[in-house]
Amino acid sequence: METQEDCFFRAAVAEAERGLAEGGIPIGAVLVHAGEIIGRGHNRRVQDGSVIHHAEMNCLENAGRLPPSVYRQATLYTTLSPCPMCSGAVVLYGIPRVVVGENRTYRGAEAYLASQGVAVAILDDPSCIRMMERFIREHPELWREDIGEE
Amino acid sequence: METQEDCFFRAAVAEAERGLAEGGIPIGAVLVHAGEIIGRGHNRRVQDGSVIHHAEMNCLENAGRLPPSVYRQATLYTTLSPCPMCSGAVVLYGIPRVVVGENRTYRGAEAYLASQGVAVAILDDPSCIRMMERFIREHPELWREDIGEE
Repeated sequence: METQEDCFFRAAVAEAERGLAEGGIPIGAVLVHAGEIIGRGHNRRVQDGSVIHHAEMNCLENAGRLPPSVYRQATLYTTLSPCPMCSGAVVLYGIPRVVVGENRTYRGAEAYLASQGVAVAILDDPSCIRMMERFIREHPELWREDIGEE
Repeated sequence: METQEDCFFRAAVAEAERGLAEGGIPIGAVLVHAGEIIGRGHNRRVQDGSVIHHAEMNCLENAGRLPPSVYRQATLYTTLSPCPMCSGAVVLYGIPRVVVGENRTYRGAEAYLASQGVAVAILDDPSCIRMMERFIREHPELWREDIGEE
């Protein structure tokens, strides 16, 4: 039986797949508040030439301007361990919980999130791992650019 | 005599003033590489309804996609102490140095930056302090929204 959490996570995966279909980096995210998805997004580096629209950032931007109290009762679902920028956005807005598809292909700022009291759940999802492994193998330079590695 | 650093910092202040003139939150930033400004930006919350276009983020976005090596030799000038999101972007891209107008009206993630080896210089600039003090006094709710405070 699929739980509500599974359903939200699958929506983040669907965003990653949408990004991949557009020729982009396959990372997706959704923001959930009071049992509803209030924002969806995926990495837009290739599509928009953006250096700030990582999946989580694009999701927050698409959710729009929200009262600070909403973020503080929200959960962010993302297919990949959030980088320092996206983790910083979580800390800025006081999002208390992040559900992460996997952290095997990239390990973001999980220690920083934990130090700021953010709960991080790692799903270790095989389909997310496969999707990123393949993308990184096929586009190593693009991937390094996205995570700022030389 | 005005130094090159003064000149870059004044360009960040000019961005903040541009944002204020547009009815926005008066925070500006510029990215400098090899003695040239390669990106400029200011907070776009009011103008674009954006929750991710803080001044530093808008500046990085306007600078466009850059080789990782460029960030690693760049300096980010900003009128205000960078929040966790903007600090995270600095860490993600490996920008080694941030010059900050002031940190009296808001203290961002300076400790996180320092822990990641980023050099932070605080100018304690009176004009930046006055501009932010006035803005916060006149728009307290907008300001709280921008820094995620209830």
